[in-house]
Formats: sequence, structure tokens, C-alpha cells
Amino acid sequence: MTKEDVAKAMMNLQDRICKQLEELDGVSLFVEDLWSRVDGGGGRTRVIEDGALIEKGGVNFSEVHGEVTSMMRNNTEITGDSFFATGVSIVLHPSSPHVPIIHMNVRYFEMDNGVYWFGGGIDLTPHYIVPANAAKFHASLKLICDQYNTDFYPKFKLWADDYFFLPHRDETRGVGGVFFDHISESQLLSKQQLLDFCLELGDSFPVIYSEQANLGRNVPFSESEENWMNYRRGRYVEFNLVNDRGTKFGLVSGGRTESILMSLPKNAGWTYNIQLDEDSKEQKTLNQLKKGIDWISFIDQ
Amino acid sequence: MTKEDVAKAMMNLQDRICKQLEELDGVSLFVEDLWSRVDGGGGRTRVIEDGALIEKGGVNFSEVHGEVTSMMRNNTEITGDSFFATGVSIVLHPSSPHVPIIHMNVRYFEMDNGVYWFGGGIDLTPHYIVPANAAKFHASLKLICDQYNTDFYPKFKLWADDYFFLPHRDETRGVGGVFFDHISESQLLSKQQLLDFCLELGDSFPVIYSEQANLGRNVPFSESEENWMNYRRGRYVEFNLVNDRGTKFGLVSGGRTESILMSLPKNAGWTYNIQLDEDSKEQKTLNQLKKGIDWISFIDQ
Repeated sequence: MTKEDVAKAMMNLQDRICKQLEELDGVSLFVEDLWSRVDGGGGRTRVIEDGALIEKGGVNFSEVHGEVTSMMRNNTEITGDSFFATGVSIVLHPSSPHVPIIHMNVRYFEMDNGVYWFGGGIDLTPHYIVPANAAKFHASLKLICDQYNTDFYPKFKLWADDYFFLPHRDETRGVGGVFFDHISESQLLSKQQLLDFCLELGDSFPVIYSEQANLGRNVPFSESEENWMNYRRGRYVEFNLVNDRGTKFGLVSGGRTESILMSLPKNAGWTYNIQLDEDSKEQKTLNQLKKGIDWISFIDQ
Repeated sequence: MTKEDVAKAMMNLQDRICKQLEELDGVSLFVEDLWSRVDGGGGRTRVIEDGALIEKGGVNFSEVHGEVTSMMRNNTEITGDSFFATGVSIVLHPSSPHVPIIHMNVRYFEMDNGVYWFGGGIDLTPHYIVPANAAKFHASLKLICDQYNTDFYPKFKLWADDYFFLPHRDETRGVGGVFFDHISESQLLSKQQLLDFCLELGDSFPVIYSEQANLGRNVPFSESEENWMNYRRGRYVEFNLVNDRGTKFGLVSGGRTESILMSLPKNAGWTYNIQLDEDSKEQKTLNQLKKGIDWISFIDQ
């Protein structure tokens, strides 16, 4: 399998996901922007806006390559002289507070010295946490992981808890999911199997998101619930701009800003020192933004 | 002058500024939260919301001290064993797109080895740039600076252009202002005169902001102008969370998150790859978000 094969597989994955998300939304279509990177490679940014379900979302494919800069050498584990990176990255912000924000990313990295790795993840950020829905989400991820390696789900679930975390808020971004990075072939899994795992995770994305979206999209919501969605989106912005290593790396390495920041919502809000009733569903959601919750245990509750 | 004298002067400055801003707003009053820092010191966070002029704003005083941590040593020019820092920090987000966002900060830093410095700055972020108004703003700053040292304004204006800049957007935050850091006594100015300069800058803040606010607060605005304000606020959020060293330092050093992030607006928005008419006032504003503009030259135009 060449790096070009991986890039082609990622590109096809983007096509399949976009098609299914358009069907799920039912109103809006993706608009595509092709871009190229001065130092090598480029991408296909696809953004969907003002849909029946999705208020703003992006499904980005990129394939970039070039010389390893000193900035990259100082900020990452990259060691070679030249690199190649490709992947698909998704963030969807729904218009309803009863549908969660979702993120998915699968990526492949290779250096001229032969070192390569896969990385990726899916995580769910409900505006209002419903433990039974979070359980369904985690159970789906576990099912995919278990087909490849039964160590994956427990390991990658912990990794997601640690990665999708806002230290300055002492809060997780949402109910987590799976996250993994720097995974290469081992006695257990070949390079082809790792690619298959990433692609299967990617292909499961529209299915998993459909299930989550359909649980909430027809539930009516009030203005106060919409305000809460805006507040929760503020935290999403904080995570992406303050904590997310991928966003930071993209911005400082001269990536295409509009493609990187498609992850930000149409609107977000900040209320100083918000005060909530201890019994409110908003406070209950905040109370559950913690690492280490075994979401699958809430199945059918 | 002891460090306690400086802290007391900063605290009194906060009182004077809040009083004048409440008069200017005419409707809302500041709400105060006292907080203390586990490792030493604390602050008075004062936030004003839903006023006639100010939608969300904060005027914060803090005085923190303690051991210099390895995090501080690695990320700053701090060299001693223990430190003392005090200052006043302000951000005001108006409800009208015809009134600019404004920021002001004056601060004092001292280490146990006797090294100290002053820092600070004021900068203006109009949603719509009006060069004659930016000229008035800069002329006021120059007048204050010139009383202390005629090198200050040209030097600090350049410094502000460089500091209040979003590299990933290739845009300045607004029309700049003045910024300075690590200033200590010299043959030209004593420590007392530097404190006086900071206090005079602080006391000029409500006067300068009144002038800017009164130029725009009674101008009616449309929904599309309000959307543009939201979009410009998105950039303000990006600067504060991605680029502002003070915010980053505060968040990673365990500062009080709600006090640090009072600088974020009530609402902000992101539109993917916005397309503007070349002749629109929105595009004209974007075209003027550049370093090196001699704003004073637009006076009375």
C-alpha cells in the first residue's frame, strides 16, 4: 500500500460520508472549495450550512506533503526530512440543542525515513447529556474497535477522555468517544488492517451520527435551551482554539485558516460566571462533563 | 514606592474607572466578585452586562504573588524565586456595531531579586472602521505619551500593531493603539513617573472610550450590521484564545478562568469563507486591518 493509496482511500471516504450526510440533512448540500498548499499538496474543504439538521458543518479532506520545517520538528514527534499527511476531518454543529455536536477525524502520516502512523477519533458533545444516548454512541464505537483489537476500545476511550478535556474549565468537551495517535503495524495488526480500521470508523460516522441526530432532531426546543446550546458552543470554541493540538498545529504551520476553523459554530456565547439551579438539566450536564465515566453502563437506562 | 503602593494605586484606578463607566452607560452597574488565589493574592473582578451602551464588559483588578513556578520560568522572562504582579485589565463589548470594542490594561511586575517592570496598552477594535474616529483615538494616546517621552507614542504604536495581530488571518485586531512591556526606570523617567504614566493612561480610558462611544451609540443599526458585529467578535475571540499571551498565561498558570475570559463577548459568530462586495463597508474595514497605518493622518477627514 503506497501513501497515494491511503490518500485515495481517504478521498473516497469523504465522498461517501458527504453523500450520506446530505441525505440525512435533507435540505442543504455541501459546497466544495479546492485549495492547494504552496509547499505541497492541498485539499477539498466541504461545508454545509443552514440545513434542516446541520446548521454548520464541514467534512474536509487534505493531502499535504513537503519538507519538515524546524517548527514541525520542534513541536511534534516528526523526525524525517520530508513528510506526507492525509486525512478526513469532520465537525457538525446542529441547529437543535437536542442534537449533539460531533467530531470525527482519521489521518495518516508518513516520513521519508519510512516511519508512518495512523491516528483518529470520534467524540460526541451533547448540549444536554442523555446517558442512554451516550451509551449507544460508545457501544457502537466499542463494536467497531473490538473487531480489530479488544484492547482498542478501553485504551482509546481513556485517550479520548484525556484529549477532549479543557483543563482551564476542569471539564471534558462532551461524553468523549475514542482517540488514538501514532498507531503503526504490530504483531496483531498489519498496516492494511489499520487502514481498514480507520476507514470503518469513518464509514460508521454517518450511521452513528444519524442515530444520535434522530434521537433529538424532532424534539421541540425553547429559547432558553437555544441559549444553553450557544453557551455550550462557547466551550467548544474554547477547546478548539485553546486546547486542540490539531487546530494549533494547523494555524501555526500555515494551513488554510478557513478550512481549519470550519470547526467553529455559526454562533457561540459566553455568560460571565453562569449560575444554574442544582436540579436543572443544564447543571446536570455540567456535572457529567467528567473523565472516567463508563458510558456503556447506562445502556437502556 | 513599595509594591503595595502600586497595588493600592491600581485598585483605586479600578474604582475610578468603574464609576465613570457606570455613568457613561447610564443603565447597568458593575457586579463585583472577590476571589483569592490558592498560591497567594487575589482580585476584584467587576462585570457589567446588558447596559444601554455596554452589552458585556469587565474591569478587573488583581494582585497575585507567590513562588515562581517552572511553568513561569519556561514561558516568560521571569528569573527570581518569587514574584508579585498587579494590574487593571478591561475589555468592553458594546451592543451597537457602531461603537468599537475597547481594551485597556496596565500592570506592574516585580521579582524578589529587585527586578521590576511596567507594562500596558490600550487598543480599539471598531466593527466598522471610521478613520477619523481612529485618528481621534490615536491623537489622544499620543498626547498622553508625549508628556512623558516623545519616543513613547511611535514606539508603542508599532508595538501595538505587532501585538494585536492575528497571523492566521493576516489581520490586525482593529486599529491598534499603544502597547508596552518590560519598561523600567531610565535616565529619562523614574519609577514614580512610569507609574504616573500607567495611571494617566488608565484615567484617560473612560474619557477616550466616552468619545468613541458617543460618536456611534445613537446611530441606528440594521440586522445585517449586527451580524457583522458578531462576525468581527469572532475574530476578537480568535485573538484572545489563540494569540493573546496574557490570556494564555492566565489559563495555563491556573488563573481564575471566569475573570480571564470575561474578555469574550456575549455572542460571536463564524461564517465559512465570507464573501463581501468589494465596495461594501465591511470589506473596507477588512482592508484596513493592516499594520503600519498612520491613523493620526486621518484626523478631520
